[in-house]
Amino acid sequence: MKRVAILGATGSIGTSTLDLVEAAHDRFDVTAVTAASNVAELAAIARRTHASLAVIADESRLGDLQTALSGTNIQAAAGGSALAEAAVSADLIVAAIVGTAGLAPVMAAVRAGLRIGLANKEALVSAGALMIDEASRSGAILLPIDSEHNAIFQCLAGQDCDHVARLILTASGGPFRTWSADDMARATPAQAVAHPNWSMGAKISVDSATMMNKGLELIEAHHLFALPEERIDIVVHPQSVIHSLVEYADGSMLAQLGSPDMRVPIGHVLAWPERMATRARRLNLLEIARLDFEAPDTVRFPALRLAREALRRGGAAPLTLNAANEVAVEAFLAGAIHFGDIAATVEDQLARLDQPLPGSIDEVLALDAEVRRTTRERLKVEAH
Amino acid sequence: MKRVAILGATGSIGTSTLDLVEAAHDRFDVTAVTAASNVAELAAIARRTHASLAVIADESRLGDLQTALSGTNIQAAAGGSALAEAAVSADLIVAAIVGTAGLAPVMAAVRAGLRIGLANKEALVSAGALMIDEASRSGAILLPIDSEHNAIFQCLAGQDCDHVARLILTASGGPFRTWSADDMARATPAQAVAHPNWSMGAKISVDSATMMNKGLELIEAHHLFALPEERIDIVVHPQSVIHSLVEYADGSMLAQLGSPDMRVPIGHVLAWPERMATRARRLNLLEIARLDFEAPDTVRFPALRLAREALRRGGAAPLTLNAANEVAVEAFLAGAIHFGDIAATVEDQLARLDQPLPGSIDEVLALDAEVRRTTRERLKVEAH
Repeated sequence: MKRVAILGATGSIGTSTLDLVEAAHDRFDVTAVTAASNVAELAAIARRTHASLAVIADESRLGDLQTALSGTNIQAAAGGSALAEAAVSADLIVAAIVGTAGLAPVMAAVRAGLRIGLANKEALVSAGALMIDEASRSGAILLPIDSEHNAIFQCLAGQDCDHVARLILTASGGPFRTWSADDMARATPAQAVAHPNWSMGAKISVDSATMMNKGLELIEAHHLFALPEERIDIVVHPQSVIHSLVEYADGSMLAQLGSPDMRVPIGHVLAWPERMATRARRLNLLEIARLDFEAPDTVRFPALRLAREALRRGGAAPLTLNAANEVAVEAFLAGAIHFGDIAATVEDQLARLDQPLPGSIDEVLALDAEVRRTTRERLKVEAH
Repeated sequence: MKRVAILGATGSIGTSTLDLVEAAHDRFDVTAVTAASNVAELAAIARRTHASLAVIADESRLGDLQTALSGTNIQAAAGGSALAEAAVSADLIVAAIVGTAGLAPVMAAVRAGLRIGLANKEALVSAGALMIDEASRSGAILLPIDSEHNAIFQCLAGQDCDHVARLILTASGGPFRTWSADDMARATPAQAVAHPNWSMGAKISVDSATMMNKGLELIEAHHLFALPEERIDIVVHPQSVIHSLVEYADGSMLAQLGSPDMRVPIGHVLAWPERMATRARRLNLLEIARLDFEAPDTVRFPALRLAREALRRGGAAPLTLNAANEVAVEAFLAGAIHFGDIAATVEDQLARLDQPLPGSIDEVLALDAEVRRTTRERLKVEAH
């Protein structure tokens, strides 16, 4: 039995993880589940999975959670230290908390030297060097859940990057892949959230439309696989069937392919280094029939250029890139700024702010809040 | 230093192997080189590589070889026992002897429990069960050089096939992929040898035109990876960029891609389990731009059906398939039969002959000769 804690159990990654873990209940023992604020669903999940611990991040909901779990042996808890407790309660953590709220629990699991199925973006984008340094000390293993990084992890198959020539992240190109720069400048939120291949939330869909998502993945790939920015390429692949590739020094390229179903990378992470059966839809190359590749356009998609610049600059530049982008995307979705202003806002904040990466997660969180605050000031928008 | 013996050093695989080994001479020590009958080239290779042993298969050429190597410390030898001696002189054997002449040296290396870079098709097609049984006893490791099997080997990355759903061999579809059955029936040898992606000899080019090459690869894949015939699919992929794929039980598919340069799989085999740099041309997905997939047509390409039937029947049926096919292809290239008669001849011989696989390589060789003799009789052609 593998002991698994699911941090962010009510979200999309959490739900897919539960689908897999519950179907293979002879193989997995769920120790803890957590959620941001959805008490009813968290309690239902905890009851279903027989978890020992259920943690609600919002401390004001602890009473409701206790009520919802009354008559069970499941411990109810709330707040940051309880999240950290959940994060070290198992052998494998699925870290699917969205946003900076995930940083402290992920760091707790890294410090404890656990295996971490990592779906939280900020852990590597905003605090990558801290996480990787701590993981190399503790022996923690980061198993990426994001389909691109999971693909690369599979293609590396446990080999280090000594013989890797380059990594190639594939990008769908998003809904504006074929749009003119003028049309993109006038794009509405509704147009920006219409992703061609994956069903996703509004924020990440806009990141796909700007291709900032790929810029952030570039930063994550750098930390996960210890390769410099210039050895990580991005190729637009509209069908999103090949999730990413590794080119070796001998000329071989390995690629991972799959249907757009997050149960594929999550299943890989749950079973690693073994494999497990999943009910994910099988890829049929004959139905797909055709795969295309094209170069990304860094003029229409300046986020790609900005992410490379932030990664080269290092320090807190990737944190600034991410925090300024989140505020700008919120402002765009609220109708406060135009689509083209998203990248311009990020570029402006990157130019203004140039700080080293702080040495602790608390300081990272404070700096992240500060960048968000100043970005809101520049955009004259209120906090979301 | 890895000690390498190159069996079939003057052929296409041998030449590519030498290119790699000589460029990385600090990493490889060539112990022995062999050739069928080209004394001058063999002697030149032996001198260049400082091999200890040079073996010419044609015993009548031993005197010439001795003369060509006079003044060196290189031992000259000839004939079958000398080939077997060369085959056990190193840690890694590159088994690139073409045809049944390769069976005995490969078996010698298998018995000795060595690592064998396998480019000889007959070892698995005609004597697969013998080779695999012996390898499991001796601990020999078969490292496939053929680009499709090498791709699968890379995608398996040392995992066994317990969690493999299926293997997918890609096929270019050959020069007649888009031809009508009527046009194929009238195809000339010149049309059949015009392979779209790889530069190859006439025999193997005709096998690509009939798709018998893919049928033979199916049989080899069955032996190499211990999967039944029904879990090995064939997909036509005209660009031949993806060399083959593995589908796992979790829904992940891994693929190996590369340029059409045999130094890629040979380099993989030479360096395995490490990697080495090669001068093979790098794949550029942006230049390739597009990959297509389609189902193979077993009506126009009956060789695919015949190979599956032979594999299901087992025993000596795959040997019969291969030997009858070789004679039929020779007859086609000599203008004695039509293109469509190749598969018909194979089907006819498979229907007539139904024998178990003999228990020794000598008996396999005798049966192979017998099938060739009876096939020639049926076709009323002379031995080539």
